[in-house]
Amino acid sequence: MSASPAISISPGDTSRSLPDLETSIRNWGEKIFALMDRAEPPSLFSTKGFYGTLMEWSMRDARFKTQLFRFVDVLPTLTSSSEIARHLQEYLGEDEVKLPTALRVGLKAAGGASWLVGTGVRSQVGGMARQFMLGDDEKEIARTLRGLADQGIAFTVDILGEAVVSESEADQYAQRYLELMEGLGRAMARWPAADPVSTLPGRGSPSLNLSVKLSALYSQIHPADPDTAAKKISDRLRPILRRAKELGAFINFDMESYGSKNLTLQVFRQVFGEPEFRDGPACGLALQAYLKDCEADLGGIIGWARRQQRRVTVRLVKGAYWDYETTLAQQRHWPVPVFQHKAESDASFEKLSLLLLENEDAVEAAFGTHNVRSIAHILAQAERLGVDRRSFEFQMLYGMAEPVKAAVLELGCRLREYCPVGELLPGIAYFVRRLLENTSNEGFLARKFAQGASREELLASPQRIPSVDPPKISDATPILQANSDFRNEPPTDFTVVSEREKMPAALATLRSHLGQRHPLVIDHKFVSTREWLPSVNPANQNETVGSAAQASIEDAESAMAAAKAAQPKWARTPVAERAALLERLAGLMGRDKAALAALEILEAGKNWTEADADVAEAIDFCNFYAGCMRDLGVPQRTQTVAGESNVQHWWPRGVGIVIAPWNFPLAILTGMVSAGIVAGNTVIMKPSDQTPVIGARLMALLIEAGLPKGVVGLVMGPGSTVGAHLVAHPQTNFIAFTGSKEVGLRIWETAGRTPPGQGHLKKVVCEMGGKNCLIVDSDADLDEAVAGCVASAFGYQGQKCSALSRLIVLADNYDRFLERLIAASDSLRIGPPEVPGNVIGPVISREAQRRILALIQSGKDEAKLVWQGSVPAEPQACYVPPTIFAEVPPTSRLFREEIFGPVLSVTKARNFDEALALANDSEFALTGGCYSRSPVNLERVKAELACGNVYLNRTITGAIVERQPFGGFKMSGGGTKAGGREYLQNFLVPRVITENCLRRGFAPEEQ
Amino acid sequence: MSASPAISISPGDTSRSLPDLETSIRNWGEKIFALMDRAEPPSLFSTKGFYGTLMEWSMRDARFKTQLFRFVDVLPTLTSSSEIARHLQEYLGEDEVKLPTALRVGLKAAGGASWLVGTGVRSQVGGMARQFMLGDDEKEIARTLRGLADQGIAFTVDILGEAVVSESEADQYAQRYLELMEGLGRAMARWPAADPVSTLPGRGSPSLNLSVKLSALYSQIHPADPDTAAKKISDRLRPILRRAKELGAFINFDMESYGSKNLTLQVFRQVFGEPEFRDGPACGLALQAYLKDCEADLGGIIGWARRQQRRVTVRLVKGAYWDYETTLAQQRHWPVPVFQHKAESDASFEKLSLLLLENEDAVEAAFGTHNVRSIAHILAQAERLGVDRRSFEFQMLYGMAEPVKAAVLELGCRLREYCPVGELLPGIAYFVRRLLENTSNEGFLARKFAQGASREELLASPQRIPSVDPPKISDATPILQANSDFRNEPPTDFTVVSEREKMPAALATLRSHLGQRHPLVIDHKFVSTREWLPSVNPANQNETVGSAAQASIEDAESAMAAAKAAQPKWARTPVAERAALLERLAGLMGRDKAALAALEILEAGKNWTEADADVAEAIDFCNFYAGCMRDLGVPQRTQTVAGESNVQHWWPRGVGIVIAPWNFPLAILTGMVSAGIVAGNTVIMKPSDQTPVIGARLMALLIEAGLPKGVVGLVMGPGSTVGAHLVAHPQTNFIAFTGSKEVGLRIWETAGRTPPGQGHLKKVVCEMGGKNCLIVDSDADLDEAVAGCVASAFGYQGQKCSALSRLIVLADNYDRFLERLIAASDSLRIGPPEVPGNVIGPVISREAQRRILALIQSGKDEAKLVWQGSVPAEPQACYVPPTIFAEVPPTSRLFREEIFGPVLSVTKARNFDEALALANDSEFALTGGCYSRSPVNLERVKAELACGNVYLNRTITGAIVERQPFGGFKMSGGGTKAGGREYLQNFLVPRVITENCLRRGFAPEEQ
Repeated sequence: MSASPAISISPGDTSRSLPDLETSIRNWGEKIFALMDRAEPPSLFSTKGFYGTLMEWSMRDARFKTQLFRFVDVLPTLTSSSEIARHLQEYLGEDEVKLPTALRVGLKAAGGASWLVGTGVRSQVGGMARQFMLGDDEKEIARTLRGLADQGIAFTVDILGEAVVSESEADQYAQRYLELMEGLGRAMARWPAADPVSTLPGRGSPSLNLSVKLSALYSQIHPADPDTAAKKISDRLRPILRRAKELGAFINFDMESYGSKNLTLQVFRQVFGEPEFRDGPACGLALQAYLKDCEADLGGIIGWARRQQRRVTVRLVKGAYWDYETTLAQQRHWPVPVFQHKAESDASFEKLSLLLLENEDAVEAAFGTHNVRSIAHILAQAERLGVDRRSFEFQMLYGMAEPVKAAVLELGCRLREYCPVGELLPGIAYFVRRLLENTSNEGFLARKFAQGASREELLASPQRIPSVDPPKISDATPILQANSDFRNEPPTDFTVVSEREKMPAALATLRSHLGQRHPLVIDHKFVSTREWLPSVNPANQNETVGSAAQASIEDAESAMAAAKAAQPKWARTPVAERAALLERLAGLMGRDKAALAALEILEAGKNWTEADADVAEAIDFCNFYAGCMRDLGVPQRTQTVAGESNVQHWWPRGVGIVIAPWNFPLAILTGMVSAGIVAGNTVIMKPSDQTPVIGARLMALLIEAGLPKGVVGLVMGPGSTVGAHLVAHPQTNFIAFTGSKEVGLRIWETAGRTPPGQGHLKKVVCEMGGKNCLIVDSDADLDEAVAGCVASAFGYQGQKCSALSRLIVLADNYDRFLERLIAASDSLRIGPPEVPGNVIGPVISREAQRRILALIQSGKDEAKLVWQGSVPAEPQACYVPPTIFAEVPPTSRLFREEIFGPVLSVTKARNFDEALALANDSEFALTGGCYSRSPVNLERVKAELACGNVYLNRTITGAIVERQPFGGFKMSGGGTKAGGREYLQNFLVPRVITENCLRRGFAPEEQ
Repeated sequence: MSASPAISISPGDTSRSLPDLETSIRNWGEKIFALMDRAEPPSLFSTKGFYGTLMEWSMRDARFKTQLFRFVDVLPTLTSSSEIARHLQEYLGEDEVKLPTALRVGLKAAGGASWLVGTGVRSQVGGMARQFMLGDDEKEIARTLRGLADQGIAFTVDILGEAVVSESEADQYAQRYLELMEGLGRAMARWPAADPVSTLPGRGSPSLNLSVKLSALYSQIHPADPDTAAKKISDRLRPILRRAKELGAFINFDMESYGSKNLTLQVFRQVFGEPEFRDGPACGLALQAYLKDCEADLGGIIGWARRQQRRVTVRLVKGAYWDYETTLAQQRHWPVPVFQHKAESDASFEKLSLLLLENEDAVEAAFGTHNVRSIAHILAQAERLGVDRRSFEFQMLYGMAEPVKAAVLELGCRLREYCPVGELLPGIAYFVRRLLENTSNEGFLARKFAQGASREELLASPQRIPSVDPPKISDATPILQANSDFRNEPPTDFTVVSEREKMPAALATLRSHLGQRHPLVIDHKFVSTREWLPSVNPANQNETVGSAAQASIEDAESAMAAAKAAQPKWARTPVAERAALLERLAGLMGRDKAALAALEILEAGKNWTEADADVAEAIDFCNFYAGCMRDLGVPQRTQTVAGESNVQHWWPRGVGIVIAPWNFPLAILTGMVSAGIVAGNTVIMKPSDQTPVIGARLMALLIEAGLPKGVVGLVMGPGSTVGAHLVAHPQTNFIAFTGSKEVGLRIWETAGRTPPGQGHLKKVVCEMGGKNCLIVDSDADLDEAVAGCVASAFGYQGQKCSALSRLIVLADNYDRFLERLIAASDSLRIGPPEVPGNVIGPVISREAQRRILALIQSGKDEAKLVWQGSVPAEPQACYVPPTIFAEVPPTSRLFREEIFGPVLSVTKARNFDEALALANDSEFALTGGCYSRSPVNLERVKAELACGNVYLNRTITGAIVERQPFGGFKMSGGGTKAGGREYLQNFLVPRVITENCLRRGFAPEEQ
């Protein structure tokens, strides 16, 4: 190692020192490269052989890469050679995939000799994967680690695992952890005393080093309730920590997605701050430099370590979930937590490396990187600061970047390998991440070993690399006429403390005003009535949320008169003004978001997340329909004709009746009302009897937003009298209804009749129920399928029109899937929805409770009850235990009737044909979906599943305005799409204006 | 006059002589310009004064020009100063019009002092107009002409007139002609013998020279029947010719629009070929050099003159209807008959000038031009050919191009002025044409006197002027999503002999196959039935067009079974194939266009034009819906979301019932069937009982086009049994109905019920009747209003849903309008529709005849019958005399009930408010319109008239596919638009597919 120039500047002033530092970094870098050149290139980047060819093709052709990696992803779940051959054909046989000739030939052969191909492919891919992971055999693991030790390389082991979707899986994981630690401890006890790892200079970490993923220790982590998660995780951690302390092992907390980052930090501080663990085991955690938060978090950990006077090892990595974090944030319109440019992450890594080195008295640094520039920077900074480079370590991944490891060792640095333990199936996510890292165009390894970037480029300072925007999502599919200003309201991020704290405050405020009377509102005037119907908290029937006036027929008539009178003027109000009203309403709802959600929690029994989502959807409807109407408000030319102007525009229909359900008490009501009025109609709204207070709140907000008198009237009362009267009313132009099939059919029929004095045909927007299905294919990703099915079936107690009700599982997967499904369901938190983290609450009413319980009872005669959750013994709450029936025959009521409660029916299908036939064997056609990794089967679902909303490889609930226009056909509705571009047309009639522009043979030029 | 260079080349070889010719032209041109410079510039182009300012502004600002000329156009009809001030404000007060300061100030003043402004404006504009026309006073006219004669200028007089919309007006015109001739003859007899005009050298024309417009001599010119028109025109011409011969007067046929050009040529040859007129009067006609046909026509006239050994004067003009001809041809997708570039017309003029000079032995040339280049070219060519320039004459318009006239006279040429006789009201079209000519950027006068083009530019050869494409129509109004390949089927141009001759042939062929039995068609199999219903010719009940099988309920059931069975496969047939089927069908209809039209003539009693239009519309529906479905067939992305693909596409509904009316027997049936099937549904079609043979013909064409079995079934039978059964059928997914309100409401109600076993809500596309109105404003252009009202009310005997039924006339115009309306109606040709030129035929059936006659009878108690046409006394035909009621009260049945026959109700409105209120006082809302020239009133109609299709200043019938999406609301229908972009959505349901593309945190780049 050559001497570096003396550094005379004061520490911390990095900006002035940069030129000298850069020289030093370059020197270190050159040295590392020189050492690397002596080693073999990493086997994945060899241009010879199977792996090399695949990686080369992956880097050249994005489509091939996608298909290959997806194939690799599904491969471990495939149970037969023919299945492997079929998937290979489906992924790589499609025309768009350009294949290397050899592969194409092989693929053709695959059709005829699947057994051969199947075995071959599995062993090839298995061979690739084994490069990165240690397998399951305890002895084999020990032998490998021992081999590393012999090379002077330390290790940390991580247990590969599927997602933990249930508490039993979390228990198993904790148990495996203990067993691994025991086993390794036993094995290492037999290693020679002169263990090179433990005798390395520097303070070092204990040689038995384990990495733990906290998400594997609790299945019900909820953003709104980190405390419960922290407690549950800690409970499962303590036995591990105890044993680690006894064994002198080191425990590292891995860092996963951003959503659980704060929780991980919280658990780390809490548990290692407990008296029992103050003095051990040795501990550390990973921090991700690509996070914008990382500097603050690192500062926090350093401070904590100082305060606790406890050395903490910080494994600084760049972060491996960039795609996921970016996608999730974009989908939810949240601030993206990761730096968007690779160079920014690299620069952050350097900045935080320096911070670690500067605080080496308090924290022990472990630098997780394969990047020579990053390594050289660390060495140069250490040199500059006079930090012994044996006082920190490098961590690299098992099976990756061998030449870099060799070079680092040559330089006398400490090196630890991150060694995942497990087979291909549980390790597939890890394996795919490694393939991605190796083929990423921005990654150091691919740049160095595949693209042949120059040393200069590879050693350039990240601060000098120009930012290139990441590629935009492009798509050949044309986009619907753009409502370009529209942006979905983000869901509240309850991991943010300040957001989380609003809800208890809102609930408290609300509780201080409960029990009020809510009169009708006609022409902005409050109208009290003789009867008042109480609305009670489904989680506590003793708590009256409010009482609703009950309209008489006369009240309905005066509401109609007001709506009729106000309509012509409102129709003439410019579109821009009508749209602005909705946007103001959206603004007010945004202001009152927590208060509205709190009201939904108490009146509708929604949990925090569901309540928040409902308010966000209401806001979306307002903003979206406002934009749609602005678009529709511009007359459109139909044809370009000389001498004649032809335009089409839209007229309001008149007076509408909006009859809304209680299950999305604000969103659906707001959606139908806002669509109706923005189109220039006036509307009488009738909220559900179960949620009148929310209806009254909407009315108040409308008035606050500047609603003119008479444009919306609030009428509450029995559907069978007041509702029916308004539907049949000859002055009613349209009815917008969302609710049950029975009521929907009655409205459809009533509106079909044109009574004397009615001057128009009645239009009905009718959205009814569903009996929604999900198919779980034999190659489904069960981690995702189990979680998605549980959420789809039991979210809001199954009281969504879109809720999963019929689960059709392919025979191959049936047992394993059902087992995990039941375990996951059994882990759900059930209780009052106002308690954060409770997922399952009561059903809407005593009546609903009785009805569903009776259905469950009779279901026992039809099918096999395989699981039933237990609910709190709270007589004043309307709980229904979530229930799973299996072996449900397609002829049964369980399979055919909409239940609208937490009851899931599972049916086994012999093959995919039967699965599709079962899925389509329903009078409803609302939502449905499929978990599969067979491209052909996914295409079949796209083409054949008879549902208005088809979801692939995700939950079948949670449609988002504009993104997933919502609505079904068959007995689910009339084929309208709430939140879709065409929705407003239902509230309008088209009108064409033709003007002859020729006069005396003269047409204006500008026509 | 200077000597011109000797010309040595042989005549006719113009190409080699061009350089020399151009020199000569330049010389002549320079000479003319020099002479012009001595004269005053034309007063219109003076930069001083009122006219000059207006013209200057018109040329600078297109919007101002449009508004000014439109104001000028309406001015003569305005009866009060306040009306003038209001219109001035409406036209020129709008923000988009940039006004000269002086005008803006004046306009502001106008509001407060309308009487002052009104009088002032009228006298100013009147003064402008009087520059171009001679007024009405016989003595004044004679004095003016005498003045011209004193200057050595000959004349031809033309009688300005409104459009001739009735036979009485044609009679009046002929009468005025005779009177004018007499009067002028008398006056000229008192002129000195040494009348300079008659003593001019050259053969010359007689000094009493009259121009006749043939369109003024017959009100019912019909493209399909030129012979009748020729006869009627000749009948009115002969007295004029006789008297002209006696007086030694010269008769010139003016040339008007292209549509009557061939007729004018035909009449000219026929009438002047008659023995009586072989030797007089002297005659000539105008030919328009801007017509592509002109060279052939001129050749024909020269040949005719030679054969007849009769000198004919040919007035060669460029043509004054360029905008109109271009617009009309573009609207109808006909070949544009005029050259599209001004230089081409100029070149054509030169070419034909030469032809005239070369044939000066046979024809006498009269060159109608103000263009110095054209004049110089004539003089140069005459010189070259050795033609004495006194052997031809120049004709220029009275009040135009004074300096050019002066120069031409100076050169010793003969000059004749075209002198229109009449007041501003009848002369307004002529006046506006003059203003346009004076302000046209391409016109010689504006270029010379306003733009100050150089002599070189003005004298450039038109063959060397680069063609500049005329400005494209641009429009800020966005166009609906383009179905860019679609082009309307052109209506047949019956002025083309070969087109015209197809119809009698088709009728004859059809007659040889009449009376066949037409069975049901189910699954492509013919199904005979026990009963057969004859379909007879409404113009001859003894003629059976064919007999239709009458389905039983069992037949309907088997049709349903076939449709149901065929649907899934058809739904899976690619959109492109389904669209191609429609396009093949359109092709077959195009092939059989005359045959299909002939069938409509005999089975539905449509006249040629209506029958042809119906076939064209059927073709349009096929092509348009094919294109729409191709568009809808492409899934559309709803939002761009990272990691998730969201697309919306459309699914067929299932099995549909199409119930069609007889009044557009092919178009509406085809439209509903083609929309249904192209969307992937199967359809049972039930044509009307009155037109089953057309239904059977469509079925045959569908099969010929390659329709798969079962996709369309043909079922005929009683609506009350078979139709009702199919509508109520639980397997029916949708019903597309067009017909009466009574049946429509019944279907709507039936479809509202969801019987047991029905797995969906039924969709109904329901188009019903109308009680359509037209408002005739007090400032309407009566020429257009009368013709438009007659066509709208009585076209196809009023048996269109769009037919005009309620005519609301502003009081100011009422008497004059009604008088002309009755006269025009009284001129309609009534008789068997197979006779070309017959406009009014029988109503559809004996039953309809009885019903309408009864309504007329009872109407006499409600209102004043002011006119009734007389119909042929043909007992076997179902004629109903066209009828006009006036003073129809809004409470009467006449005003309120749909009649569906040739009955027009007229109601007087005191003001426009009342007119609009009357118009909207109807349970229907289908079509409606307004004739007005008040921008404000037109805007009110656009905003307030409650109709699905609003028409301004044109007929309210004749909607064209895509151009005028057709359909209404209130009791006229459900708000669907046949032939509109959104129509197919009625036959489909939207379906959204959401795919989570993230796997293991990895989303494909190309998503």
